[in-house]
Amino acid sequence: MFIMFLTDFGLEDDFVGTCHGVIKGIAPDAEIIDITHGISPHSVLEGALVLANTLPYMPVGIHVAVVDPGVGTDRRGLVLESADGRILVGPDNGLLLPAAERAGGVAAAHELTNRRYAVEPVSRTFHGRDLFSPAAAHLALGVPPEQLGPALDPASLVRLDLPEPYIGTSRIRATILYVDRFGNIQLNVRRTTLEEVGLSPGDQVELELGGDRYYAIVARTFADARRGDIILYEDAYRNVAVAISGGSAAATFSAQAGQELRINFTS
Amino acid sequence: MFIMFLTDFGLEDDFVGTCHGVIKGIAPDAEIIDITHGISPHSVLEGALVLANTLPYMPVGIHVAVVDPGVGTDRRGLVLESADGRILVGPDNGLLLPAAERAGGVAAAHELTNRRYAVEPVSRTFHGRDLFSPAAAHLALGVPPEQLGPALDPASLVRLDLPEPYIGTSRIRATILYVDRFGNIQLNVRRTTLEEVGLSPGDQVELELGGDRYYAIVARTFADARRGDIILYEDAYRNVAVAISGGSAAATFSAQAGQELRINFTS
Amino acid sequence: MFIMFLTDFGLEDDFVGTCHGVIKGIAPDAEIIDITHGISPHSVLEGALVLANTLPYMPVGIHVAVVDPGVGTDRRGLVLESADGRILVGPDNGLLLPAAERAGGVAAAHELTNRRYAVEPVSRTFHGRDLFSPAAAHLALGVPPEQLGPALDPASLVRLDLPEPYIGTSRIRATILYVDRFGNIQLNVRRTTLEEVGLSPGDQVELELGGDRYYAIVARTFADARRGDIILYEDAYRNVAVAISGGSAAATFSAQAGQELRINFTS
Repeated sequence: MFIMFLTDFGLEDDFVGTCHGVIKGIAPDAEIIDITHGISPHSVLEGALVLANTLPYMPVGIHVAVVDPGVGTDRRGLVLESADGRILVGPDNGLLLPAAERAGGVAAAHELTNRRYAVEPVSRTFHGRDLFSPAAAHLALGVPPEQLGPALDPASLVRLDLPEPYIGTSRIRATILYVDRFGNIQLNVRRTTLEEVGLSPGDQVELELGGDRYYAIVARTFADARRGDIILYEDAYRNVAVAISGGSAAATFSAQAGQELRINFTS
Repeated sequence: MFIMFLTDFGLEDDFVGTCHGVIKGIAPDAEIIDITHGISPHSVLEGALVLANTLPYMPVGIHVAVVDPGVGTDRRGLVLESADGRILVGPDNGLLLPAAERAGGVAAAHELTNRRYAVEPVSRTFHGRDLFSPAAAHLALGVPPEQLGPALDPASLVRLDLPEPYIGTSRIRATILYVDRFGNIQLNVRRTTLEEVGLSPGDQVELELGGDRYYAIVARTFADARRGDIILYEDAYRNVAVAISGGSAAATFSAQAGQELRINFTS
Repeated sequence: MFIMFLTDFGLEDDFVGTCHGVIKGIAPDAEIIDITHGISPHSVLEGALVLANTLPYMPVGIHVAVVDPGVGTDRRGLVLESADGRILVGPDNGLLLPAAERAGGVAAAHELTNRRYAVEPVSRTFHGRDLFSPAAAHLALGVPPEQLGPALDPASLVRLDLPEPYIGTSRIRATILYVDRFGNIQLNVRRTTLEEVGLSPGDQVELELGGDRYYAIVARTFADARRGDIILYEDAYRNVAVAISGGSAAATFSAQAGQELRINFTS
């Protein structure tokens, strides 16, 4: 059984390794796939988007996700079953729902309360180790989700506000969702939106970010641009993104997740 | 058989991957759990504390730890057997002993000298690859520790000086043991020490660090504090730690491992 | 079957985890060894050197390497078979050849074109996920390389210019190949070259880097030097390297891969 694991723990500390130890101590044959542990600390939205984006590429199994600024409060722990047969484990703060929807929607939800499947004593600050990892390991051993706690109404689950773009006749006001290692800037815009406003490969647009303006070219891929060109392209997760051919757009623009980026065009 | 692996190698270079390759080439069925490779370079004390703190969460098996500023000198290589049936492999510089004590104490010790279980030619600078990883792999295959070299008197092993707090009637002089990704500052103080000096959740104390002073609240968890409050709490490894609710205490205080931090209180 | 995996993807994003998911979804029993994902972004030369240096320490299997600034252009994808029975998968930009040569040379080469072994739809920017990972997984399942596309003449493969040192009677002009986490500076010089120009342990030389000059000692290992000494030694991959005993040579010298470093000596 595969356990997919995503957190904001980083790899500098032992947090991830300790969770691996807990899982393997309970379910030695479970195999862990680390999606990433590089989610920005406490960024639930970023974690939710990465979990949902990567889900179609993962084998069916148990997804454990922990980005959990509310640990130690009364926020609930969740075990969700998706319509396509996956299980998701994590805090009830919106982290799991976009992925569950990508997996066909929530077919059943249980609150993670049964301490029989926890590592005792449960700490107040590290539920990744003490609640979520052992729950995932027991699920991998075949414990049914309903054993882990009482059923929840899926409508009661905490839901994130996903930022929506404003689409006008000469402007798209987008939000930066994510900046990757290569400096590519992912936007909350899909290629179909560019098409709807009449933009196609080869067109020039103006980008506005933090008061600065830059010309960019709508392109199919890096290869369509000359070195140093700013391009607007559909990335591998089907979001529109900004890149600089042979450089880092994020460094050039000092771009960060959450910022507004405007795409100005003449229709 | 599980091989737990902790180093200061980082993940930017190939050091960890190369050790994995060596282990898997010798013992294809051994399963490696990476505790962390983010120990600060050459920080034997930090490595020793993390190895000991995480040990109770790891399955029984072989712990290999390499934080080894003395590589290439005449420092010895070790294979230790703990009273509870674990094996620890690494340099004789104090790195392994706190973990071995957490595992019931050293039941037997051997010096790692037998080149039959090394990768030849043994380099002068990378014993993680050439001595410790292959030793762990052969141990995982069932080679008994006494095959790896002569017995050692456990009393002869190098021992670290662990920093001890000074506990007075109106002041605790603590040492910062560790700063994590979330900016939490771990101290060499246990909750019981706070209780002994009469501090309990809700009490206010003054923290002194590098000449600056801050008010802090003794709390059970982040959830007891308002955003921005400085709290003193028992962390998931049962050390007292300093945190800022919703922020990074380490960044705010410019805190680093090894610094003195004073907790002033009125008794 | 082992799949060795090296990229410049880093571990902050999900790129590596997503590739693991793709591989495991196709070949659940394949075991992945991550050599490193810390290659400097788009540094094909660095990736090629690390892939070749680590190859002798890896079990026989499939090496997948992705450092791919030309993704989306018409650069070819490759499946190479080495004389010693390894398979290498990656872009045709020179990344694979030094490793293939370390493995006895290229015995057969095929272009990776058969979309039956790809993840559809193939993106224009993430061939690690959509082409190279699934190809490796299918190879691990036993699909023969010739199924993946047409045979290529090995002489047609793109080849890197590896920097060669200039060796004079009183000077070696070397190039910095790599700087590691510990600040050690790896040069494109072998110990035999030092011997040829008459240098042996204990000799003093002058290092010149970016206009600055430093004295250094030829040493067998760190242990031969006093704390703070600059040494020139043979590293664990048999390159000559510069280090500071107890410190970071790279930080002291502001050294970076690609720079020229001169070793001046009196013959």
